[in-house]
Amino acid sequence: MQTIFTETHKDAHSNARLGILSLPHGDVQTPAFMPVGTNGTVKGIYHDKIEEIGYNLILGNTYHLYLRPGLEVLEKFGGLHNFSHWNHNLLTDSGGFQVFSLSGLRKISEKGVAFQSHIDGSRHIFTPEKVVDIQKVIGSDIAMCLDVCTPPNIEYRAAKEAMHITHNWAERALNHRKELGDAFKGNLFGIVQGNFYKDLRKESAEVLSAMDFPGIAIGGLSVGETTDQFNEFLAYTADIVTKEKPRYVMGIGSPDYILEAVENGIDMFDCVLATRMARNGAVFTDDGIVTLKKAMHKFDQGPIESECHCTACTEYSRAYMHHMVKTNEMLGGMLATEHNLTYFYRLMEKIRLAIAEDRFSSFKKDYLARFYKR
Amino acid sequence: MQTIFTETHKDAHSNARLGILSLPHGDVQTPAFMPVGTNGTVKGIYHDKIEEIGYNLILGNTYHLYLRPGLEVLEKFGGLHNFSHWNHNLLTDSGGFQVFSLSGLRKISEKGVAFQSHIDGSRHIFTPEKVVDIQKVIGSDIAMCLDVCTPPNIEYRAAKEAMHITHNWAERALNHRKELGDAFKGNLFGIVQGNFYKDLRKESAEVLSAMDFPGIAIGGLSVGETTDQFNEFLAYTADIVTKEKPRYVMGIGSPDYILEAVENGIDMFDCVLATRMARNGAVFTDDGIVTLKKAMHKFDQGPIESECHCTACTEYSRAYMHHMVKTNEMLGGMLATEHNLTYFYRLMEKIRLAIAEDRFSSFKKDYLARFYKR
Ligand SMILES: [Zn+2]
Ligand SMILES: [Zn+2]
Repeated sequence: MQTIFTETHKDAHSNARLGILSLPHGDVQTPAFMPVGTNGTVKGIYHDKIEEIGYNLILGNTYHLYLRPGLEVLEKFGGLHNFSHWNHNLLTDSGGFQVFSLSGLRKISEKGVAFQSHIDGSRHIFTPEKVVDIQKVIGSDIAMCLDVCTPPNIEYRAAKEAMHITHNWAERALNHRKELGDAFKGNLFGIVQGNFYKDLRKESAEVLSAMDFPGIAIGGLSVGETTDQFNEFLAYTADIVTKEKPRYVMGIGSPDYILEAVENGIDMFDCVLATRMARNGAVFTDDGIVTLKKAMHKFDQGPIESECHCTACTEYSRAYMHHMVKTNEMLGGMLATEHNLTYFYRLMEKIRLAIAEDRFSSFKKDYLARFYKR
Repeated sequence: MQTIFTETHKDAHSNARLGILSLPHGDVQTPAFMPVGTNGTVKGIYHDKIEEIGYNLILGNTYHLYLRPGLEVLEKFGGLHNFSHWNHNLLTDSGGFQVFSLSGLRKISEKGVAFQSHIDGSRHIFTPEKVVDIQKVIGSDIAMCLDVCTPPNIEYRAAKEAMHITHNWAERALNHRKELGDAFKGNLFGIVQGNFYKDLRKESAEVLSAMDFPGIAIGGLSVGETTDQFNEFLAYTADIVTKEKPRYVMGIGSPDYILEAVENGIDMFDCVLATRMARNGAVFTDDGIVTLKKAMHKFDQGPIESECHCTACTEYSRAYMHHMVKTNEMLGGMLATEHNLTYFYRLMEKIRLAIAEDRFSSFKKDYLARFYKR
């Protein structure tokens, strides 16, 4: 197994760490936040702008891309990079989460998962091998193993069974990945499951850590559990998962969850929150989330954030943003998206600087006190 | 009255002409197409991109801007240019068309028109004087007189009455404009009405031409009449309206209507067609309108138009555009909007070149034969 991760500095007072993730389309500084581009585009923003902000790793959804545009189109274009005009890194998820949350009539067996498209009801089967093949067609720089996602508080027996299938699938995916050899440049990550049972989490973290993956994701978190549960199971699992490899927590994207993850030595995370909230006119600032629709912004000549260098903050007032949101103008969502993605990029820069200077814990404390004081 | 228009060349074989329109925010080359920015933003595109394409005159809607963000906000920001970050010219319509097509319970009297907001039902009155004042607050480079818009094929008596009120209002608006003096830099244009009755059109064109306006609009066209009616009444009216001033036809934007207008010596036009169709995935090419949603584009590696230099055409395939439209991604509308506005800008460049080279009529013939052959 190639080593794709180098830890360059560890915070003196926490497990937070700096690193470099070496991927086919360039190095990524970690901890890194990844914008989500479900259909091969991050909603409401040009790929050129995402690049300008500084991102060089974004996420696509395997399930969605498999259904539309479909593998035939992606094959013809030589993958999603070329199709979507994105020349930096792409991570694709396993499709498992969408199969379990979006599709109709799904049926899991040892073999794989049969499901119906949420778009047209057509029937499909994902196997661990097929999901690797799909991500090969997409041309993912980081690909994920098919896993079985479970909601919080299911019975122990069901959680254990889902975990065992996940482990079995991880092994099959890894073997298939090895067979493909250099024909696929992507790095396949395994996913830890185990629901909210500590012995299962421990087993899963150990099994996945021992396998020959270049990176590990901690799955099954931020799926509807309480914040306390999230914090407890994140810390517990992160403590066991190997620290030699890049560690990824899927689906987290609010500043408190990101900071918690970084403190536990997590290197990567993704979330639709920043972009989805933007389209609803909610923008992030160091003083908390600002709801642009509120009447208080109607006459406000100031920008969303004076230190932000995005188009919204350098060219427009809060009053104009308020007007765009009130009139449902696309430009409101476009500008707010650019702001929020800029905000999260800058937040990650501040986090990385705090780690470099061995003051991550005090940064986290000060940040949260200010962000959530409202 | 100041002269704001210089005819620089007249086509040898038609009434088409080239000119320069001198406005407070810079000179505009005519014939000119104006994108429509109803709420102080052209839907789906950054103002910076509109400027990049080459436009330096866009339209805003007085009725919409009066209701939202409202005059208090616009006053605080010193006008729409500053509020919307647009440093080139703005034309605003009179609000009349929207009052007659959108608002509830409208009542016309000699004094003005009382109406209810289509947003919240609130009651308002537009008088000719007030509409000039509103456009002063907006900071319009070209302002329009309040007029009475009538649908096609109303009775002669009603058409005549509407025209007389329009003339009376034009005089009052002009007097009010003169009282404001240099406190308002905008150029007030009068609007010819007269419905589809030639004697009324003649009377209105003569009355308006004799008044002290820096420019004239031909109103009441493209309101639901047939293309033959449009062509007939456009040619008839354009022949009478003074040629000393810039001549504007409101609400036209398909290539055939634009070419017809240019041939009759019209200098300016605006339409939501280019941007509205873009948001529905319909893009303009020299070979006609392309509906991106159609399955024929699913694998198409070519751009919308190979000669076009917009982002859609330089960075993306028709297949990607098809995918964006099928998945309802905002980027589809954003890219298609940029393409269509680029298309219309380039069309106007080609038209101006054809006039300069005294071959407008053959250009028109060839263009229409190719565009509508499908
Ligand atoms: Zn910003
Ligand atoms: Zn184009």
